[in-house]
Amino acid sequence: MNFIYELEFKVRDYECDLQGIVNNANYQHYLEHTRHEFLLENDLSFAQLHNEGIDLVVARIEISYKVPLRSKDRFISKLNLVKDGIKYTFFQHIYRLPDMKLCVRAKVENVATINGQLAHCQFLDDFLEKINTKYKNNNG
Amino acid sequence: MNFIYELEFKVRDYECDLQGIVNNANYQHYLEHTRHEFLLENDLSFAQLHNEGIDLVVARIEISYKVPLRSKDRFISKLNLVKDGIKYTFFQHIYRLPDMKLCVRAKVENVATINGQLAHCQFLDDFLEKINTKYKNNNG
Amino acid sequence: MNFIYELEFKVRDYECDLQGIVNNANYQHYLEHTRHEFLLENDLSFAQLHNEGIDLVVARIEISYKVPLRSKDRFISKLNLVKDGIKYTFFQHIYRLPDMKLCVRAKVENVATINGQLAHCQFLDDFLEKINTKYKNNNG
Amino acid sequence: MNFIYELEFKVRDYECDLQGIVNNANYQHYLEHTRHEFLLENDLSFAQLHNEGIDLVVARIEISYKVPLRSKDRFISKLNLVKDGIKYTFFQHIYRLPDMKLCVRAKVENVATINGQLAHCQFLDDFLEKINTKYKNNNG
Repeated sequence: MNFIYELEFKVRDYECDLQGIVNNANYQHYLEHTRHEFLLENDLSFAQLHNEGIDLVVARIEISYKVPLRSKDRFISKLNLVKDGIKYTFFQHIYRLPDMKLCVRAKVENVATINGQLAHCQFLDDFLEKINTKYKNNNG
Repeated sequence: MNFIYELEFKVRDYECDLQGIVNNANYQHYLEHTRHEFLLENDLSFAQLHNEGIDLVVARIEISYKVPLRSKDRFISKLNLVKDGIKYTFFQHIYRLPDMKLCVRAKVENVATINGQLAHCQFLDDFLEKINTKYKNNNG
Repeated sequence: MNFIYELEFKVRDYECDLQGIVNNANYQHYLEHTRHEFLLENDLSFAQLHNEGIDLVVARIEISYKVPLRSKDRFISKLNLVKDGIKYTFFQHIYRLPDMKLCVRAKVENVATINGQLAHCQFLDDFLEKINTKYKNNNG
Repeated sequence: MNFIYELEFKVRDYECDLQGIVNNANYQHYLEHTRHEFLLENDLSFAQLHNEGIDLVVARIEISYKVPLRSKDRFISKLNLVKDGIKYTFFQHIYRLPDMKLCVRAKVENVATINGQLAHCQFLDDFLEKINTKYKNNNG
């Protein structure tokens, strides 16, 4: 899979549960933070969008857990973004460093709401076109 | 769908994020807590299993987010459990109270590990048989 | 100490960290949830106040950790509230059930802000007077 | 105050609550992660200590909240460590970047337990002596 953005993290001990591994819910935090940082790098702020009445909300998520992360592990979180009808779908992988073992594979489907109502959001489409152009140029 | 266990919760304000709704990752917490309470009610402690070297780990999760929960909402979390090969699959729904709107629908596939290795666990199969008998009798 | 409100909880496994005990930060969650439920029971919603531009913010907290809570523990969280100048100070204790061991003792100083500025808030003073009357009558 | 260690962070959106600011409890996470990274940099692993039966537990914490952190904020977390009887006391400050506004000031008192019992831990004293020597040399 082609990825257009990546972000490095390190496990924080409070993210581990009594099994001594990162609690499953925290991977959703990692995945969300990766998406928001990706948006920010492309001049789109999740918090600011919210203040303007536009919310990008997760409608569906699939996560496959392959290898658990532990205290002291560093990892890299990668994403790609595809538009499919009214859905903005992120494909996201998390790899442990330095051995690049695949830890988590996720598919995250978002929809846009304006003032709480499901909506077509021209703004986000323009954004998607911009990043498609940007990353195609980078890759080609 | 038939459910064999249910647990009532109330949203805690710290579970809401800057969108003013419960953060997506927290539903995994609700779902996990429901599973663990279900196990406990049937005399199986997740923490104690871990201390004995047996871990029930989530291999894959699918969550559909339907209606967001907000500050002050009460909700009910329901589950069913089905064995499928080496997988123990929980089907879980979360309904807002009192209007019973479906908020979240999840499918959570677990596998057992013994001392960190994927394993067939007779212990869990006996458990499953026990609860199948128990809940069939309750329902029939 | 006299307490005017109490709320029962049960430890959720995801609140425990790799030491097998509830992570220290989660006690702040318990304490916050207790304060917000206390406000709600007295017809004051933290979330609604925020939407009206009034925020009750923690200026200072002291927490003494006495006995750690573990998986499966139930506990009771108690509070008292005292006004001291511009500060609204909550005194909060958490006791393990059923043995009533003191787990956590906290002092939480709040101040009010209106549209982000530190402010005297007549609204909260009226609230405090109301609950003082209410609980004095209950206790006397 | 002299600090002997510092670590840079960036706010993650899920750490913000419905007030739009970082939830108070998350500062304890930031402070804990700073302490653990400090220990790691000096070859002491919190998770590994736990596996050997030694736990460094927080007995008391004081936190003053000065300026709230928000979505997109970067910040720097600094610490110093002093031994006082059986207590290992961390003094910790969090400053917003780039304006270096003081956000949080904390005093975190730890004690050592061996197999769950309060204990004098020669190991930690040797550690403290080592870092005192190291940082004194660095500073002067």
